Amino acid sequence: MQILNQDTPIKGIIPPMVTPIDTKGKVDIQGVEKLVEHLISGGVHGVFILGTTGEFSSLDIAQKKELIASTCKFVNGRIPVLVGVTDVCLQGCIELSKFAERSGAYAVVAAPPYYMGIDQEELYHFYEQLANSIPLPLFLYNMPSHTKVSIDVETAVALSKHKKIIGLKDSSANGSYFQSLQFNFNDQPDFVLMVGPEEMLAETVLMGGYGGVCGGANLFPKLYVKLYQAAVENNIDEIIRLQKLVMSISQKIYQHGGYKSSYLKGLKTSLSFLGIIQAQFVPPLFPFEPNEVEELKVRFSKIASMIIE
Amino acid sequence: MQILNQDTPIKGIIPPMVTPIDTKGKVDIQGVEKLVEHLISGGVHGVFILGTTGEFSSLDIAQKKELIASTCKFVNGRIPVLVGVTDVCLQGCIELSKFAERSGAYAVVAAPPYYMGIDQEELYHFYEQLANSIPLPLFLYNMPSHTKVSIDVETAVALSKHKKIIGLKDSSANGSYFQSLQFNFNDQPDFVLMVGPEEMLAETVLMGGYGGVCGGANLFPKLYVKLYQAAVENNIDEIIRLQKLVMSISQKIYQHGGYKSSYLKGLKTSLSFLGIIQAQFVPPLFPFEPNEVEELKVRFSKIASMIIE
Amino acid sequence: MQILNQDTPIKGIIPPMVTPIDTKGKVDIQGVEKLVEHLISGGVHGVFILGTTGEFSSLDIAQKKELIASTCKFVNGRIPVLVGVTDVCLQGCIELSKFAERSGAYAVVAAPPYYMGIDQEELYHFYEQLANSIPLPLFLYNMPSHTKVSIDVETAVALSKHKKIIGLKDSSANGSYFQSLQFNFNDQPDFVLMVGPEEMLAETVLMGGYGGVCGGANLFPKLYVKLYQAAVENNIDEIIRLQKLVMSISQKIYQHGGYKSSYLKGLKTSLSFLGIIQAQFVPPLFPFEPNEVEELKVRFSKIASMIIE
Amino acid sequence: MQILNQDTPIKGIIPPMVTPIDTKGKVDIQGVEKLVEHLISGGVHGVFILGTTGEFSSLDIAQKKELIASTCKFVNGRIPVLVGVTDVCLQGCIELSKFAERSGAYAVVAAPPYYMGIDQEELYHFYEQLANSIPLPLFLYNMPSHTKVSIDVETAVALSKHKKIIGLKDSSANGSYFQSLQFNFNDQPDFVLMVGPEEMLAETVLMGGYGGVCGGANLFPKLYVKLYQAAVENNIDEIIRLQKLVMSISQKIYQHGGYKSSYLKGLKTSLSFLGIIQAQFVPPLFPFEPNEVEELKVRFSKIASMIIE
Repeated sequence: MQILNQDTPIKGIIPPMVTPIDTKGKVDIQGVEKLVEHLISGGVHGVFILGTTGEFSSLDIAQKKELIASTCKFVNGRIPVLVGVTDVCLQGCIELSKFAERSGAYAVVAAPPYYMGIDQEELYHFYEQLANSIPLPLFLYNMPSHTKVSIDVETAVALSKHKKIIGLKDSSANGSYFQSLQFNFNDQPDFVLMVGPEEMLAETVLMGGYGGVCGGANLFPKLYVKLYQAAVENNIDEIIRLQKLVMSISQKIYQHGGYKSSYLKGLKTSLSFLGIIQAQFVPPLFPFEPNEVEELKVRFSKIASMIIE
Repeated sequence: MQILNQDTPIKGIIPPMVTPIDTKGKVDIQGVEKLVEHLISGGVHGVFILGTTGEFSSLDIAQKKELIASTCKFVNGRIPVLVGVTDVCLQGCIELSKFAERSGAYAVVAAPPYYMGIDQEELYHFYEQLANSIPLPLFLYNMPSHTKVSIDVETAVALSKHKKIIGLKDSSANGSYFQSLQFNFNDQPDFVLMVGPEEMLAETVLMGGYGGVCGGANLFPKLYVKLYQAAVENNIDEIIRLQKLVMSISQKIYQHGGYKSSYLKGLKTSLSFLGIIQAQFVPPLFPFEPNEVEELKVRFSKIASMIIE
Repeated sequence: MQILNQDTPIKGIIPPMVTPIDTKGKVDIQGVEKLVEHLISGGVHGVFILGTTGEFSSLDIAQKKELIASTCKFVNGRIPVLVGVTDVCLQGCIELSKFAERSGAYAVVAAPPYYMGIDQEELYHFYEQLANSIPLPLFLYNMPSHTKVSIDVETAVALSKHKKIIGLKDSSANGSYFQSLQFNFNDQPDFVLMVGPEEMLAETVLMGGYGGVCGGANLFPKLYVKLYQAAVENNIDEIIRLQKLVMSISQKIYQHGGYKSSYLKGLKTSLSFLGIIQAQFVPPLFPFEPNEVEELKVRFSKIASMIIE
Repeated sequence: MQILNQDTPIKGIIPPMVTPIDTKGKVDIQGVEKLVEHLISGGVHGVFILGTTGEFSSLDIAQKKELIASTCKFVNGRIPVLVGVTDVCLQGCIELSKFAERSGAYAVVAAPPYYMGIDQEELYHFYEQLANSIPLPLFLYNMPSHTKVSIDVETAVALSKHKKIIGLKDSSANGSYFQSLQFNFNDQPDFVLMVGPEEMLAETVLMGGYGGVCGGANLFPKLYVKLYQAAVENNIDEIIRLQKLVMSISQKIYQHGGYKSSYLKGLKTSLSFLGIIQAQFVPPLFPFEPNEVEELKVRFSKIASMIIE
């Protein structure tokens, strides 16, 4: 089913897909199909399922497999599917990677094991064992706010020598760290550096980055694709114009309600306004209060009206 | 199989059992049996499997079930078995709890979901849903260094109203926090407050605590049982004498090698010196270097010779 | 003026004195006198001025000198005066230490320089230079929540070899750390280990500690002196009784209003209810809102009525 | 002496000047003069003294005043002088600001008070009181790694309404935060947003930022000025070329030796290779070991040879 050539580095907008959930707490297959079509018709260059935005940590293995299988089926080879296999248990990462390969995924993505405090050497060995044991290429996933450990630049460079390790997604929001990555991987153009926070998409692409894993692209895929294109083309006026829209989403939707989980609540609830998914979550998250939903709807409408896709 | 009356609060030394692993990475059943006998003959008041010391996060579900079943079988109702069911996925916690119940466990223990940053309200609801869905009593497990979220005293008090929630194990090492717990639960003598760090066992029992989940009790169960008894009896001279031995272990064994994982490496490697388990680990941990093992052996021998059990 | 023998280790309750401020933002000398008499008549074993509770960081050098001079004058050698000289600038620490010596202080207390991130080796050298340059004995002051750096046990041990360095006050609230200190200083009975958080006073004295730097002793000195005595005498029943009062203060007064600075606001405002000082602060702190003061007054009255001194 | 019009927002490269120190620990006035000429001849758009790079926290008030007076004298109105007045004591900030004004400085720069943990409301009032009390315009200085508190975007926006507060320097390295600032200050073009980490200079200027407070500009002012110009002109090829040089400095010089203070040690020691200052520091920092100096010299020579200014 896979039509992509893994020798060409992936670039562009790879939304970290939210996981559609129904009112019974199950994966909403219809929602997956709608969301996949929404994203592909929006021109995204790939999808990344089972990331932080995909609530990977809260789903059980059956839900994860259902999501992988259904996403790969609906995508049907039109764009690459990246599958998050992050797990505190190495064996869990490996098993999910094998399932992803059988389902037709393009690559897997793994953040460090996130319970124990570990050293860089332990981190290196964990990734090496993982890369040795899986049938698909692997992206490293730097997410220190959630995993407590950062993938040091030196560790990333050492790991990049492994032929299975093809890129790194950085969600640290640390601009100096990302520039250090770009500097150190300058002579490895096949190693893909993607940025997590969408607020930093344009600037990192301007500086040579490969694209972004932008949560907001679940909502407005065309907006982020356009911003990426403007950055590739070094079209500063267009970047400035689009960046304001991206920042409006960041400011008005992702901080709504003042929860630690406002980003995810705002994103999924806004997608429900578009009729694509239901505003349902997996524990420990739960929906906004009704009045919060109403307030968000007003905010969302204003932003949506500014974004004529 | 369960012979304990759950209406009597558990007290004393409940070692967080290390998980014996063989050279192939599997649960070493013979090691489990030896360790269980070592602990019970040492007079411990219960065992806690699949805690942080038990490398719970690194084991897959099959390994966890094997450990639960074999531990319960070997213990055979002589002491209560507490089972760690901590999982980022609520459904995972519930399933493991049901398995623990079928295996004859006394209670389950759960730390907060540890990937996403969550608020106290989300934490409360997570625990409430868990308590509503499981057949065994539940201990809360405060471990902020690993889970990033602390169980606020107010949250613990609110949760204690749930009849299934019977206690809290605090591994924060924060003495003020533990005293706040004791103060707030003063009028709920059935709610069990256990301390994690063994360095704080004696003082917290002196002040009214119920006991400790002492990692070092894997090695020298009698030492910690004696220290607990001395604290119950307010025998300060004996406490001071035994505390020095406990601190020697803490200082010489748990910090050996200067790794973030030195505690666990030192503990399991020392247990291998006693011939009880092998010095094997699950990724992301790996054994000491041979020279580190030799140095530890010297340190261990000195301490062991001081502890005439 | 100094009547104490510095060869006898200081022990007991050493309140971290709040700094009385008048409505013009100046040191309230009359308040200093009243507070000093309140403390001495309450039986405290010393006073510690210009600590965190004394708002040292917010006072200018003239205010600090005025407080040192007036406190030493009012105390008049009846109890030892410890003077906080913590400063990010070594020269500032030295100058204040010299002034403290001329004013008749017993010793100085210094937390690590708290702006730059520094290593233990830099920390060691800083303290060594300080100890070499001052005319009074020096207490180390561990306060990692405020200084970002912790004084490692090894560093404390190395520094204790300096004849000017006579003790350590630990405000980390980390019970394992404090026990590690006690274990490592076991054979240096002249090295004074005092605990900061008053919630931990009783237990650390039971385990061999020298006493506490209890903020609440500003309010109710006799209560803390009694608790200290009960701990010295290993009178558990009395400890349990008094600990509840101490915890009531901690819970009802120090967390009032939910500010990061609630401890200090609650403490000074309560002292104003006793007519000892005014509820005035130095920036960046400012007084409670009037309704918050009223609510606190109710809480305070309840607690005060339980504490018949 | 001031020749600049404060109504025109400052832009470009404003090096955070290191403080030249002699072997006796005093401000090295000759070094100040040499450094000022080096910077001005390098085309910088201003200098910022007494920042973190200037070791402000470690200097006493006399040293600070000497540095302010001498810098202003040597600069002699050719470029704006920004003076760091960060102090935990509000009165200290105010006094230094008045001295800066009398010396001919252009503006002052203040990070939050950095000892106590404070809330945003307290932070707001602190800055408001400061701005009300000083004769010069004020830049906010966000430096959460050192001050523990971040200046929330909302707080910065609220403070920007004060006519004395004219800009913000962000040293958080958080790219999302900086973009949030730019978005929120989009309609206030007179409010100057400068970035601290030099690794992020080019990208933030491309996105509309005003320039950078680049430590490396002490060494190679022309390099950073050129990079700034390239960013202003949207000359991506030139940016990519110069960014590599900037990153070489960041990687090879600022991390030398693996100290927490490696940045400052590497920077000042490299400046000594240029014969501009001596490699002297104020406690708690101290010089590299001789072998570390030799290794750095080799690294530095390689980089310097690549940078033909």
